[in-house]
Amino acid sequence: MREHFSLTRAGILLFSLVLAITLVSLKRSNLALAWLSIPDSRKLTPPADGKPIEVAFVLGDGVTMIDFAGPWEVFQDAGGPDGVDHFHLFTVAESKTPVHTSGGMTLIPDYTFGNSPPARIVVVPAQRGAAGLLDWLRRKQKETDVVMSVCTGAFQLGKAGLLDGKQATTHHGYYDDFEKSFPKATLVKGRRYVQSDEVIYTAGGLTSGIDLALHIVDQYFGRDVAQKTVDWMEYQGTGWRE
Amino acid sequence: MREHFSLTRAGILLFSLVLAITLVSLKRSNLALAWLSIPDSRKLTPPADGKPIEVAFVLGDGVTMIDFAGPWEVFQDAGGPDGVDHFHLFTVAESKTPVHTSGGMTLIPDYTFGNSPPARIVVVPAQRGAAGLLDWLRRKQKETDVVMSVCTGAFQLGKAGLLDGKQATTHHGYYDDFEKSFPKATLVKGRRYVQSDEVIYTAGGLTSGIDLALHIVDQYFGRDVAQKTVDWMEYQGTGWRE
Repeated sequence: MREHFSLTRAGILLFSLVLAITLVSLKRSNLALAWLSIPDSRKLTPPADGKPIEVAFVLGDGVTMIDFAGPWEVFQDAGGPDGVDHFHLFTVAESKTPVHTSGGMTLIPDYTFGNSPPARIVVVPAQRGAAGLLDWLRRKQKETDVVMSVCTGAFQLGKAGLLDGKQATTHHGYYDDFEKSFPKATLVKGRRYVQSDEVIYTAGGLTSGIDLALHIVDQYFGRDVAQKTVDWMEYQGTGWRE
Repeated sequence: MREHFSLTRAGILLFSLVLAITLVSLKRSNLALAWLSIPDSRKLTPPADGKPIEVAFVLGDGVTMIDFAGPWEVFQDAGGPDGVDHFHLFTVAESKTPVHTSGGMTLIPDYTFGNSPPARIVVVPAQRGAAGLLDWLRRKQKETDVVMSVCTGAFQLGKAGLLDGKQATTHHGYYDDFEKSFPKATLVKGRRYVQSDEVIYTAGGLTSGIDLALHIVDQYFGRDVAQKTVDWMEYQGTGWRE
């Protein structure tokens, strides 16, 4: 009886060991992730040809500096010093006339809403808005992986009707204004970012855009590439892993 | 004997109470701070006329986006929504020819090294360097409150000879290069920023510049104004209080 028990126990131990090794091996294979329901951060697919992902930054007068500069730095540094160029960045505006940022820096846009090349990511920082912007955003929502607002850039998505019936966030100083302006959207407070639908993401105020951009890097290339970006940027925020 | 002891104890308690009240009152008065050696964050004096402090951002080809954009946002937002304009920002470069940031955004400088107006703060982001920059920095070091480098912007201060015999820091990926290039400087590793002398401050890599700029706001206007800036920016880093 005693010997039988020992054999059973040895069997259970061996079975557990084999199961553990199998699970660890499966976790390393992406194919098994869905079946095992182990969450994976990668939910967006990089281009099959390995070319950089095109990222369009919308500029307009009064555009808030850190709203575009934070995500710009993240996409540019993605993967750290050893990273290949995962992203290629350009700017789009109503016209190629120079625009002035918050605080008054002068920028020259690369393209206009009329001639901008295709992009898989569109970044919408806080700005006053411009003729043609809302139509351009509606078009982009149908042909991109990601349209992400930063700060009160969410107001441009709201005006374009892209947040109706969806959750969204914005800068904490504009919560009331947002709720009054977009009663069909559901404001989520106190979050670094909120995914509104399959394509649309909204970040909180100012530096929150850094975390959302890191989250997008994470979704395309996984946790390791995102963490290397964070390390290279000497970034101390952790909200991107929320 | 017992009564005498009680009276002594009452006297000690009363004396302690008066001393505590006196110390708290003194702490509220700036004048007493030096005498009491209670540390105060305010070590720089804002203009007596209440006018904004002029901040010059040095631009050059390849200038790293977050290196200037981080401090730009901090100085622009200082004090949060209720803050007066504590700072006024402008850009300076070799010429007014457009420059391209890291990742390729196009900027138009406001002034040249030859015609830039006076500034009390100079921000030196990472960049390739330009004719006239080193002489301009040497001049500025003599007539400003603060010359602050961000990331490998420290290399420009080093080349200008402004870090000889002083402590400094830079981006962690360039520690070896820095030590080889500037053997007369003492590299400090793993810090968000280092004050090199009365005027010169050096930040670590990329996002570290946000913390150094917040530290400068703290030094001019105190902890409350710096914290309001942090809150408005929804900034989660704490390195500025180091």
